[in-house]
This record gives sequence, structure tokens and C-alpha cells, in this order.
Amino acid sequence: MVGIYTVRMAWDTARTRRLLLDAAIDEFSAYGFAGARIERISAGAGVNRERAYSYFGSKRGLFEAALTERLLRAFDSVPVDGTGPEAVGRLAGAYFDASVADPSLARLVYWEALELDEPVDPVHRAYRAGAATERLATVAGGMSPDAAAQLFLTIVTLCHSWMVATNLGRIVTGDPDAHARRRAAIVQLAETLTRA
Amino acid sequence: MVGIYTVRMAWDTARTRRLLLDAAIDEFSAYGFAGARIERISAGAGVNRERAYSYFGSKRGLFEAALTERLLRAFDSVPVDGTGPEAVGRLAGAYFDASVADPSLARLVYWEALELDEPVDPVHRAYRAGAATERLATVAGGMSPDAAAQLFLTIVTLCHSWMVATNLGRIVTGDPDAHARRRAAIVQLAETLTRA
Repeated sequence: MVGIYTVRMAWDTARTRRLLLDAAIDEFSAYGFAGARIERISAGAGVNRERAYSYFGSKRGLFEAALTERLLRAFDSVPVDGTGPEAVGRLAGAYFDASVADPSLARLVYWEALELDEPVDPVHRAYRAGAATERLATVAGGMSPDAAAQLFLTIVTLCHSWMVATNLGRIVTGDPDAHARRRAAIVQLAETLTRA
Repeated sequence: MVGIYTVRMAWDTARTRRLLLDAAIDEFSAYGFAGARIERISAGAGVNRERAYSYFGSKRGLFEAALTERLLRAFDSVPVDGTGPEAVGRLAGAYFDASVADPSLARLVYWEALELDEPVDPVHRAYRAGAATERLATVAGGMSPDAAAQLFLTIVTLCHSWMVATNLGRIVTGDPDAHARRRAAIVQLAETLTRA
């Protein structure tokens, strides 16, 4: 009976943690770090404010956990399909689509850049970015680590910025169909830079 | 005497307007739209709060004026030098340098994208963006308006994002000399895309 009770506790803990992270991603994405309210996050997760703090320690701890969780989901969401310039183009297009479907990561990253002095969780993120860059170099079919890091940063920046600043993009392109054209331009850019 | 008095009044008005805009650019760039305080802006400009409102009507009016002013300065800051892919590369490098020297425009644009439902002053900005895109097509030495608009958006986005998220860039590239390498990558990208 003790065993079942312990499993049940662990399950509740994991579930509460997950609900808090989902609510935190929504709240920080909408309002940023300073504008977010822990009361709204804990209400969204159906727990009280003290319990939210007991899981993540501080507002910054909760922001860090939300951004890390959202990054992990992003890395898992883009399938690899073949190698060569067209495969890199498909990766870029898939990442664009993932950013469109859920712009919360793009928003979290820009809020962080504007509001915090230092990025949260830099060691873990450097490790993940290194893995993603290596994967990109492999998909490109041979590319220096430096070039792959720059291309990775370029693709992610362009996809994130489009979703953060989509109205601005429409201003520059003057195009009601700006979205599809921007996707095509980013795919073509990824192919061209991989070939160069 | 009336003439001199009128000129003096106009000069004071222009000077106060300019001081308010400078203070507003600093304040909105640092704290965003919601976080900015009109009290700090008017104190920075040495006028009282009511006078600040009498010039720009509202917080949003002041934000719009600050962003528009900062955009005008950016358009004037990048010299054109020759034509062809290398000239586009030089334009991109010059815009990167201008963003490094003063990241306030990049910050204003991302705050706007995150905080406001619609971009301010869209008609005037579409006109300026159209002029900049035409100029880029000319410098490229023949490029379709569509391609020039996409390339313009790509260069501006990459330069702005680097300055907003420079710590993040260091995470991805894992490079203490990330800044110079990022500049070189953006210049090379501009050249390569112009050639393609």
C-alpha cells in the first residue's frame, strides 16, 4: 500500500508540475517576465500560489523552467528527412511551420532578450544548441561547425522574428499573402546558403 | 519684435519636442511600452508631464513618435557605396554596425511586436520600407521587387535580432568572438543571396 501511495504522489507531482509549466508558458508568452503574474499561473494550473513557488522557487525559476520545457518541445517537433540543400530547406520550412503553429517559444525568447540581463539556463541550452547544430551539419551533408552554427542561428532567428513581428513583415513586403511568401523565402535562403 | 518672439517660440517648441523624443527613445527602448513611465520621460526632457502629453497626446502617441523618429535616423545612417553583391554585403555590414552602435531601434521594434496588437504608423512605415526596398534592388544591380523586399526583411531582422538577443547568439555559436563572426556571416549571406 505504501508503494501505491508513493506512486500516486509522484504522479500527482509530475501532473502538477506539467500543469504549472503549461500555464507558465502561456502567461510569460503573453505578458513577458515583468508583466506575468504568478497568481494567474497558479490559478491556471489549479494550485495555490505557495505551491507554485514550492515547485520552482521564484518567478525567474518558473520562467527558466517554462522556457526550457518549450525549447525541448521545439527540438522534438522538427523531423529530419534526407540530406543535402533541399533537406535543409525542408528543415527550415518545418521549423517555420512549427513557429506558426505555436509562437510561444519565439515570444519567450524575445521577452527574455529584452527583459533579462542574462539568458536563463545557458549551460543546458548551449548543449542543446550544439546538438542541433551538429544535426544541421549532418543534414547539410558536410558543413563546418562554424558555418552550421551560423546557419542554425539564421534559420531560427528568421522563423522566430516572423512570428513575433508578422505585422511588421507585412509592412515591409506590402503583401497580404506575406506569410506564404516569407516561408518560401526562408526555405530558399536555407537551400542557397547550404549550397554556397 | 513679434517676428523674433515667434521664431524664438518655434525654436523652443522644436527643441522641447526633440528632447522629449530623445528621452522617449531611451525610456521605451529600456522598459518597453507597458513598462515605460511618462514621468521619467518628461523628467529626462526637463518638462512637466502635462507638457509631454500636450505634444504627443497619449503614451501610444509618444511611442509612435519615438519609433518613427528612430526609424528616420536609421534610414539616414547607412551609406550606399557601389552596386552588385559586394555592395549589398557592405550595406548589410553597415546596418549591422549601426545596430551595434545604437540597439534602440531593434529593441523598440521587438517591444512593439510583443506588446501592441498592431504596429504604429503603418502607412508611413510602408512608404519608407518601399523606398528602402527600391534602393536595395538598385544596389543589387537588378532584383525583383519581391526578392528585394524579402532580402531587406532578412538583413534587418538578422541585424536587429543579433542586438536584441546577443547573449542568445553566443549560446548558439558558443563563441566569445561571436560578434565579429556574426557580422561576417550576415555580410556573406547578403552577398550570396544577391548572387543567387
